[in-house]
Amino acid sequence: MGKQTIDLGPLPDLIGYVLRRAQLVVFQDFFAAFAPFDIRPAQFSVLTVIERNPGLTQSQVAEALGIKRTNFVGALEARGLTERRPAARDKRSYALYLTAEGAALMRRLKPVLKAHETRMIAKVGEDGRATLIALLQEIAEGNGSPNGARLKGAKASRALRPGSAAT
Amino acid sequence: MGKQTIDLGPLPDLIGYVLRRAQLVVFQDFFAAFAPFDIRPAQFSVLTVIERNPGLTQSQVAEALGIKRTNFVGALEARGLTERRPAARDKRSYALYLTAEGAALMRRLKPVLKAHETRMIAKVGEDGRATLIALLQEIAEGNGSPNGARLKGAKASRALRPGSAAT
Repeated sequence: MGKQTIDLGPLPDLIGYVLRRAQLVVFQDFFAAFAPFDIRPAQFSVLTVIERNPGLTQSQVAEALGIKRTNFVGALEARGLTERRPAARDKRSYALYLTAEGAALMRRLKPVLKAHETRMIAKVGEDGRATLIALLQEIAEGNGSPNGARLKGAKASRALRPGSAAT
Repeated sequence: MGKQTIDLGPLPDLIGYVLRRAQLVVFQDFFAAFAPFDIRPAQFSVLTVIERNPGLTQSQVAEALGIKRTNFVGALEARGLTERRPAARDKRSYALYLTAEGAALMRRLKPVLKAHETRMIAKVGEDGRATLIALLQEIAEGNGSPNGARLKGAKASRALRPGSAAT
């Protein structure tokens, strides 16, 4: 088709452009691997946080993951994977839990996740992986950005320091 | 609020999760910087490719950028930034060009882009940036993935080898 060289100009040197391309490739692999379970990446993240932290409120899960949409558990609940119970401390909000079915699904997904991650690591090697994750965390931390105030969610992605999610 | 430590389990060690968090932070900065011009990242990429390669068809631009949607130039054309003319070789398709207004906008956006990228580089340093981009390109190349056949768009992102976009 005579489709030789397309000049992408500055794009391949832009962190955002290359990040986005890489992210789409990784998500493509995730979609394909998790399609038999009908689980998308954001849903897997939500299920993981609920599994690891039973009883969180929806807004706590949203903040930890940087999710802006409301009622992101609706579809998971409709499928019987999660359930809401009135929160002990705040009657206006609900605490989230995996159902037995949700917990069983997470067990089945573990080898699927491991295989996905192994394929991703194969692209860069173990050393490359460690370097990549460290650099990406520096990007996600939001230091040096004028938009720091908006990056609450990103900072909470580490959430290892007490109170960090509240800054 | 008693929102201490939320256990994210394996998420912070997953390439896809950390990629996505970093990408959202970088795009957040891009959105804020380009909002006065009402230009989103994908639109900037399209304008860049049209600027650098006047006369490409829409499908060539889509393939180079890995865009799946059709008529992604509609909004740009409605704003008078791009225009379509019948393609010389194939009367069924249209060749894309920037209008004078589109070219002027791209000139105004150059310092905005540079300032954005400088903020991103500040997060990881110049060496970190080079390493990060190299690792992300390895991820985006799609080697070692069982979904290789789907990753045409990602491979085309380099598009430096003749015919690579046609594989």
